[in-house]
Amino acid sequence: MSVEEILKAAKTASVTCATTSEFARDAALTEMAEALRLKVDDILEANAIDMAAAREAGTKDSLLDRLMLDEGRIYDIADALEDLRNLPDPLGVVEEDRILDSGVHMQRISVPMGVVAMVYEARPNVTADAAGICIKTGNACVLRGGSMAHNSNITMARILHDAAVEAGMPQNCIQAIQTTDRSATDELLNARGMVDLLIPRGGAGLIQHCVEHATVPVIETGVGNCHVYIHNPANIQMAKDIVINAKCQRPGVCNAIETLLVDQDIAKEALTVILPALHEQGVILHTDPLASGIVQDLPGIPAIVSTMQDWETEYLGLEIAVRCVKDLDEAIEHVNRFGTMHSECIVTEDAAAAERFLAEVDAAAVYWNASTRFTDGGQFGLGAEIGISTQKLHARGPFALEALCSYKYVVRGTGQVRA
Amino acid sequence: MSVEEILKAAKTASVTCATTSEFARDAALTEMAEALRLKVDDILEANAIDMAAAREAGTKDSLLDRLMLDEGRIYDIADALEDLRNLPDPLGVVEEDRILDSGVHMQRISVPMGVVAMVYEARPNVTADAAGICIKTGNACVLRGGSMAHNSNITMARILHDAAVEAGMPQNCIQAIQTTDRSATDELLNARGMVDLLIPRGGAGLIQHCVEHATVPVIETGVGNCHVYIHNPANIQMAKDIVINAKCQRPGVCNAIETLLVDQDIAKEALTVILPALHEQGVILHTDPLASGIVQDLPGIPAIVSTMQDWETEYLGLEIAVRCVKDLDEAIEHVNRFGTMHSECIVTEDAAAAERFLAEVDAAAVYWNASTRFTDGGQFGLGAEIGISTQKLHARGPFALEALCSYKYVVRGTGQVRA
Repeated sequence: MSVEEILKAAKTASVTCATTSEFARDAALTEMAEALRLKVDDILEANAIDMAAAREAGTKDSLLDRLMLDEGRIYDIADALEDLRNLPDPLGVVEEDRILDSGVHMQRISVPMGVVAMVYEARPNVTADAAGICIKTGNACVLRGGSMAHNSNITMARILHDAAVEAGMPQNCIQAIQTTDRSATDELLNARGMVDLLIPRGGAGLIQHCVEHATVPVIETGVGNCHVYIHNPANIQMAKDIVINAKCQRPGVCNAIETLLVDQDIAKEALTVILPALHEQGVILHTDPLASGIVQDLPGIPAIVSTMQDWETEYLGLEIAVRCVKDLDEAIEHVNRFGTMHSECIVTEDAAAAERFLAEVDAAAVYWNASTRFTDGGQFGLGAEIGISTQKLHARGPFALEALCSYKYVVRGTGQVRA
Repeated sequence: MSVEEILKAAKTASVTCATTSEFARDAALTEMAEALRLKVDDILEANAIDMAAAREAGTKDSLLDRLMLDEGRIYDIADALEDLRNLPDPLGVVEEDRILDSGVHMQRISVPMGVVAMVYEARPNVTADAAGICIKTGNACVLRGGSMAHNSNITMARILHDAAVEAGMPQNCIQAIQTTDRSATDELLNARGMVDLLIPRGGAGLIQHCVEHATVPVIETGVGNCHVYIHNPANIQMAKDIVINAKCQRPGVCNAIETLLVDQDIAKEALTVILPALHEQGVILHTDPLASGIVQDLPGIPAIVSTMQDWETEYLGLEIAVRCVKDLDEAIEHVNRFGTMHSECIVTEDAAAAERFLAEVDAAAVYWNASTRFTDGGQFGLGAEIGISTQKLHARGPFALEALCSYKYVVRGTGQVRA
């Protein structure tokens, strides 16, 4: 089917999806989980084709690891669908209920978005995560995964679709784009009236492309140029633990930090402890002139002199930029200028300074004496996560079921007209 | 100042705006209302220049009426600012509050959007409405009104700004674009990182342009191709009252109806009553073949045979399209195909049919036996209104304070790191 035909079918499915019962949607998630487990061989076979092609193309190991499925991973994906099933129904929630002056009865009720399009890169688990979350929220979904995972994606999407339909959801409630042609993404981005929400998930290039070219509503996700700022007075040991955790625990994710800011009057004391610890973890240091001076006194710790570009860089790896700042004002200014409104942390023993940072830094999540790594749907208790929004419209920070719902006003009268 | 300079100044102002107290923001609204009353002569003088130019350009009366200010209208605008002041503070609302497994304290708190840009047409009252609502919600605003009202807008914006600053709000919290050059709008639409939300208000052309060209987040507003559907069995008298109210009370607004659908098996009974009543109000009828047959038996009631284009047309005037449908299914299909997801009404005595219509029609507001004219921030009890959203992201239907706010996660710890 062409993208246009897929979207028409999705639109039709979405009308029925919107009126399915909680029971039907939860039953579909049970069937979908079970189908993945039963058809694990089909999925592995499709994944093997993708893996072979990716290896042949010289794909690097970290990407191959994202692409790779095995029985354990598929069972984890199935378990996640059951976790989703166990969450409360997000639909039909009466958010407001009142009799208006005219005597009509007005309710504001949560409803599905309609048709949700997901555009993502090489991780085939997103196929199941996105399909599951759309079924839970009564949305029809159109999936556009990375071409590298194409066989894995269409195989999983077909299995998930058939299981959902078996359980009573409408035909075409889950569809994957069948072509790897790049123009299909642009068709989705411009399908006004057919796509109610588009969510891009992937690298900065993909997100940027979607945000710049979309005429349909988009939630911008995931680019994280995050900071830890050490403000005098600070517990240096605590600062070290937070910096090491936020930088090194999983450097490739968006809630990892990229720049360390430190008040210049405790820079020597703090960096003398923290930079060797970062070096020990294999982190490459990009230091500003003041920090570079401190590094020179630390035997065996190499550092590269930072440039303006370092403040803007999301390394997504074991590298960090280090800048000494005059005071809280300069730190907040730096974070608001170079940050991507994702996750920002201050380490300090000064409560008033902390509260100013929490209030004035413009980010989805602001931390005082805790690691930025907590910005995560699971950690925040959402029960699921489809992405982390770095925009302020509709959803901010980790988002899941609530963000895939809208609301409508339902008004019941007995013939009232406006005076 | 150039658009870029204005946006930089707005961004700086927004950081301070976000931390102002409820007291300061409400005091600013009091001062702004008072300043409009005190400087009514300055505003009338500026408006007279706009009116003279518009008259000279041969502007039609309905537009001149929108542009025109007099003392009464200015006092009404001032009163509206005081009404806004009396609404509860939308900021700092703790939407979630919990201790996470790791022991950190997480709160989700309502915050301003940041910089809100308004792009609108000839009504100068929008200048004060938008500035007021932005001050109430702690946002810095950038106003880009229609060129026809340019003098009125910049004069009012200056008066409002100076009053707000006098009351303690930061410099540049309210700014109007000083040029009537059209490229300024496109600069706003593409000011990624500088504009957190852009709201277009005006005709379909303006909205379409903004939605298609914006790379900043937008709330789509106001285009309303709305329907009343009369389903058998219906109270014909009630149907007539609702149709007349929804079509004729204020035909130029977005919640007025454009098409009447009627079940064919009561078409004769219903249209024999309703079409003469519409004709009496001066409404031009565009009827499908079946309805045209019924009109032929009504002496002295002219009608034009409708085309497909009529189903798509927002007349915004005393014209209506009339179509006979087979049943509820065909009616829902028509509404979902041609409607603009604004306001849709079913008139029926059949509760089951009504509930299906309310559930399956995809619109911001769905009505059973009440006029679509109730879709309005004031009627819905929002206390204000900045527009009516026809998208499903972030805000749907009439929106006001809540839609100009986002939220942030504030996390306070004692050194926790992620395991």
